[in-house]
Amino acid sequence: MSSSSIVVVGSLAYDSISTPKGAVDKTLGGSANYFSLSASHFAPVKVVGVVGEDYNEEDFDMLKQKSIDVDGVQRVSGGETFHWKGEYKKDMNEAITLATELNVFESFDPQLPENYKNSEYVFLANIDPVLQEKVLEQVQSPRLVCCDTMNFWISSKKEDLKRVLKKVDVLLINEGEATQLTEDSNAIAAAKTITEMGPKAVVIKRGEYGFVLYSENKYFILPAFPIAEVVDPTGAGDTFAGGFIGHLAKVGGQLEFDSLKQACVHGCLMASFTVEGFGVEPQKNLDWTKVEKRLEEYKTTISF
Amino acid sequence: MSSSSIVVVGSLAYDSISTPKGAVDKTLGGSANYFSLSASHFAPVKVVGVVGEDYNEEDFDMLKQKSIDVDGVQRVSGGETFHWKGEYKKDMNEAITLATELNVFESFDPQLPENYKNSEYVFLANIDPVLQEKVLEQVQSPRLVCCDTMNFWISSKKEDLKRVLKKVDVLLINEGEATQLTEDSNAIAAAKTITEMGPKAVVIKRGEYGFVLYSENKYFILPAFPIAEVVDPTGAGDTFAGGFIGHLAKVGGQLEFDSLKQACVHGCLMASFTVEGFGVEPQKNLDWTKVEKRLEEYKTTISF
Repeated sequence: MSSSSIVVVGSLAYDSISTPKGAVDKTLGGSANYFSLSASHFAPVKVVGVVGEDYNEEDFDMLKQKSIDVDGVQRVSGGETFHWKGEYKKDMNEAITLATELNVFESFDPQLPENYKNSEYVFLANIDPVLQEKVLEQVQSPRLVCCDTMNFWISSKKEDLKRVLKKVDVLLINEGEATQLTEDSNAIAAAKTITEMGPKAVVIKRGEYGFVLYSENKYFILPAFPIAEVVDPTGAGDTFAGGFIGHLAKVGGQLEFDSLKQACVHGCLMASFTVEGFGVEPQKNLDWTKVEKRLEEYKTTISF
Repeated sequence: MSSSSIVVVGSLAYDSISTPKGAVDKTLGGSANYFSLSASHFAPVKVVGVVGEDYNEEDFDMLKQKSIDVDGVQRVSGGETFHWKGEYKKDMNEAITLATELNVFESFDPQLPENYKNSEYVFLANIDPVLQEKVLEQVQSPRLVCCDTMNFWISSKKEDLKRVLKKVDVLLINEGEATQLTEDSNAIAAAKTITEMGPKAVVIKRGEYGFVLYSENKYFILPAFPIAEVVDPTGAGDTFAGGFIGHLAKVGGQLEFDSLKQACVHGCLMASFTVEGFGVEPQKNLDWTKVEKRLEEYKTTISF
C-alpha cells in the first residue's frame, strides 16, 4: 500500500532552551519541523509555514533529504524567523516560556501549493486557530483532520478555536490544556467533554505519564516509554503527533479505534526519542530499526 | 492453596476530609484500616496499632466481620485516636494536610500477639521508621517485607528510615516522595536508585497516572484504572498496598517479577474503588465480582 500524504501547518523556529541537563541557543525547532521529521518515517509530508531571511538553507535541505516537501513554506525577505525561548526546571513536565517572538508569523497568510490541496491527512499544529482554519479551507477533501492547540489560544481566541474544533476529527492536546479547555480537572472526564465540542476522538498528552485516547465511549491509556534521563522535552508533543498521524497515513486509517490505538503507540514511541537530546537532533538521526526495537521493549514494559 | 497471613502496622484514625466533591468529618480512616480492608479480599490480615478511648467498637466489628484480626491493636484508656485533617483542591493528586494530631501514637510501643509472630507477609505502613523496625523485629521469619513512608519521615528521620530500607524487600512509595528520597526528579531513575538503598523491588505510586514497578533491572509501568469522577483519593495508596501484598500472600509470591506485576495490577484495581467515595466506604462494600469485572475492563483499556 502506498502511503497517503500529510499536510502540516505549524511553526519553523529557532529555539533557545535551557534544561537541568544543559542549554542550547537558537537551535532548529518549531512544531512543523518536529512533526514532519517524525511523520516522514511513515508517509510523505508537505509543510506549510513561514520563515525569515535568517532561516538557514541547510535546515530546509535536512527536511528535503527526508523527502519532506517545503514548497509551502514562505520566506519573508527582511523578516525574522519565529523565536521561542524557554526553560525547564526540575519538573521537566512543564516549560516556562521566557520569550515568544512571533516575527514573520504576525502577518502570515498561509497559501497551499496546488499539489498540497489533495492531501489525505491534515495536521493543524499549535498556531492561531484562524490560521488553522485558513489552511483547512484549502484542502479539498481530507480523509482525516487532526489539530493541536495551547493555553494561549484557549484564553485569547476561544471562539475561533471552538469553530475549528467543529471541523476536526481528532484533537491532540496536553493534559493541562485539556482541563483548561473543559474546566474539568479530571483528564478522563475532560476527554469525554472534548468530544462534545466536535472532535470524534481526543488524545490527551501527559508527558512522562503517556496519553489518554478517548473515542466512541472507549478509553485507551498507557504510560510513556520509560526514559531515565530526559534531556529536553521540547517537541515531544509534535513528534507524538507525527507518529500518530504518520501511522494513520501509512495504514490508511481513519477513526477505527484499533487504528487510533496503534497510532497512539507510535506517537508515544517517536516522542520517547525526542526527549533524549536537545532540539530536533534525536529525530534527525533516528533510524527505523531503533523504533522497532523500542516497540518491543515498550510492549514488555506494559504487559502482564 | 491456603493463603499466608499478613501482619500490618499502621494507623487507625478518624479523618476529616474536604475535596471538591464534598466533605466528611471524623470518618474512619488510617493506613491500617485501608490496607486491611483491601488485603482481606486476598488473605488473612492481622493488625498492629493503637487507638484511644474514643474509638468506636463498631469500627473494630466491621474489620472482624471480614476476618481481620485486631488483637494487636492497643486501646489507651483516656487517650484519643489519631486524627488527620486534610484537603484536596482541584488537583486531586496532592493532599494538603491541615492538621495531624498524633495523640495515642506519640507514645506507641507496638507489641505483637504471639499468633502474629509467624506471619509470612509484613506491611509496615507509613509510620515512624523506629516503630516500623520494632514491629519487624518481632516477626520471626517473614517471606516478604514491604514498607511505605512519607515526606515527614524522609526529612525528619532519614537515618532511621535508611536502616529500615536495608531490611525490607519492597518499598511502596509515592512519586513525590521517591524523588525527595533520591533527589532525582525522574521517577524512572529514582526507582533504580532506591534499589541501591536496600529494597530488591520498588513500586512508585503515581495516583491517577498509575505506578512504576522496578526490580531486577526491569520496569513494569501502567496507568491507573480510569475514573471520571474522583471523590476522595485518601487511602488509595494503602489500598494499593493491600491489593499488592494481598495478591502475593494469596499466591505465595515473593520477588518473582511476574508475581510482582500481577500484584501491582491488583493494587491498582483496589485503589480505583477507594477513590470513588469518601473514606473507607467504597472498600467496606466492595465485593469480589466487581474486582474481577474491573480487571477485564482494565485489560481492555491498556491493550493494543
